[in-house]
Amino acid sequence: MDNHEFPFTKEDVVLAKERIRPYIRETPLLASGFTAGNDRPVYFKCENLQVTGAFKARGAFNFILSLQSQGGASGVITASSGNHGQAVAYAAAVLGLPCTVVVPEDVIAVKEQAIRHYGAKVESAGRTSSARIERAEQLAAQRGWVFVPPYDHPWTAAGQGTAGLEVMQQRSDVSAVLVPIGGGGLISGIATAMKETNPGVRVIGVEPELANDTYLSLQAGKVVDIGANHTIADGLRTSHPGHYTFPIVQRYVDEVILVSEQDILQAARDLLFNSKLLVEPSGAVPVAALAKLSPQKVGTGSVVCLLSGGNTDPGWLASLLTGLAFGDEVKR
Amino acid sequence: MDNHEFPFTKEDVVLAKERIRPYIRETPLLASGFTAGNDRPVYFKCENLQVTGAFKARGAFNFILSLQSQGGASGVITASSGNHGQAVAYAAAVLGLPCTVVVPEDVIAVKEQAIRHYGAKVESAGRTSSARIERAEQLAAQRGWVFVPPYDHPWTAAGQGTAGLEVMQQRSDVSAVLVPIGGGGLISGIATAMKETNPGVRVIGVEPELANDTYLSLQAGKVVDIGANHTIADGLRTSHPGHYTFPIVQRYVDEVILVSEQDILQAARDLLFNSKLLVEPSGAVPVAALAKLSPQKVGTGSVVCLLSGGNTDPGWLASLLTGLAFGDEVKR
Repeated sequence: MDNHEFPFTKEDVVLAKERIRPYIRETPLLASGFTAGNDRPVYFKCENLQVTGAFKARGAFNFILSLQSQGGASGVITASSGNHGQAVAYAAAVLGLPCTVVVPEDVIAVKEQAIRHYGAKVESAGRTSSARIERAEQLAAQRGWVFVPPYDHPWTAAGQGTAGLEVMQQRSDVSAVLVPIGGGGLISGIATAMKETNPGVRVIGVEPELANDTYLSLQAGKVVDIGANHTIADGLRTSHPGHYTFPIVQRYVDEVILVSEQDILQAARDLLFNSKLLVEPSGAVPVAALAKLSPQKVGTGSVVCLLSGGNTDPGWLASLLTGLAFGDEVKR
Repeated sequence: MDNHEFPFTKEDVVLAKERIRPYIRETPLLASGFTAGNDRPVYFKCENLQVTGAFKARGAFNFILSLQSQGGASGVITASSGNHGQAVAYAAAVLGLPCTVVVPEDVIAVKEQAIRHYGAKVESAGRTSSARIERAEQLAAQRGWVFVPPYDHPWTAAGQGTAGLEVMQQRSDVSAVLVPIGGGGLISGIATAMKETNPGVRVIGVEPELANDTYLSLQAGKVVDIGANHTIADGLRTSHPGHYTFPIVQRYVDEVILVSEQDILQAARDLLFNSKLLVEPSGAVPVAALAKLSPQKVGTGSVVCLLSGGNTDPGWLASLLTGLAFGDEVKR
């Protein structure tokens, strides 16, 4: 690992921050009222309050702006019906590029509407991720457009890392940050930004037990594919870590904590009723991991939970309420 | 009006801000993505993210701290099962005073639990506001404790006004602020702080059509009592403006806008699904009024909606979802 040449450095994240600054929000770092470890204060980095409702806007803007600075493209394509698809649709519209998003045939109506709302064209192809990517790459080749990868690209990951730079500027005493892991774009960007500024900061990844591909890959010392999985944290249903991102996770991430589906739901409820923040299940996993932190793991400064997004549908919210015992919302 | 001697001035609000600073949060002023009037950007002052989930903590701390600086009390009592009751319970616990909150016999269980959670004793009395206040004043007299008024007191209103000082520090270009009106404690404090700093700022009150007591009182030029009312905005169900607060509203509030129950619900939905913020109906009324603002009304700077609180029960949230048409959440 020591000789591995990483595809981007903290300097790329600093440049990305400057590049995307006119288009994204510096999201607030909010006092949570919670503590972790040895009574350390917990803060929430609220990427659910980011434009398009998730951190993905950072990577999408950095990718498209980097592309434009290198001669540009006549259009962009991606293959996600989730937060990445919405972010690419929005960034392309703002930056004046045509955009097509390939979605599954059984896409949820509100997600398709969101993508169209941001001004992108929608095409449907199959029901698997590989069918969508194949169709997207075919369209890209036909049109001379560029495929925007959801996480496994230095431009994308460096863009996501700008959230980590903001955290360090907002609270210079941060000693631990908890970050959801899907494909690893967010945590590899944040870890690069933070560890290359202060190697003492603990970067802790959080995965659902049902989508523990990075956890298992770290144990195996190589990328492991766990196949399809069905965690309620739909943004974290990747089957394997990225090939660009995994070496960075190996180098910089101190630990990966696994959380149960029940813990994720409870964290999302606490965030809604105690903290008044709508956070999607994928974004709530760091809060689900708080109870599992020993004092040694969080250090002596502030603890930050990266709330990665807030895009939910009413059906999910209704299911969250169904399981709600009276009295849950008064814990503060 | 010109000779009226107001019970507090901006200077009292400045002193209150210093007094309560160790105990409350400087809540964030968030970019909303919305515009109003002539394309002016709208910001949200997020008092739903305040300790105890509402601005009421500001007034409760200022009242009890002012009391303590004047020789103190052996305990405090109030008669609200809502945000004021929770705020007084919390402030008393933090400041080391015993506290009793008188609630109606048919109090909602979660509200009673919240008050107990903050460490106060709960007594029930009757089902009307006057029965509760009578019992609270009786207990206060018996024990030598002090009754903490919900809005009609200079200490309370000056405490609430600290939110207005923060807004002006957070965005010096603010040209209009929209504030919910219940008894008038919040808007009289904010108007005093803002108008006595910059008379050009427009202070706009918002009331539910079903609880238009201040609107009618302003028309009549005197305090009008509208009796019991049942707006979904339960924090704004006052029957008349306060006797301390009304003259300040007469002097400083530029206009009161009325909003329908349907508009309030739609605003709360938009806040939840677009802005990812849980805001109670009373706190959502400024957003409901945005569409009614002409360019002249908001001026040429930033427009601020004061989101006063976020304490809701799961039942209310479920009813909010029931009315939700698919696609509502993609408007940004």
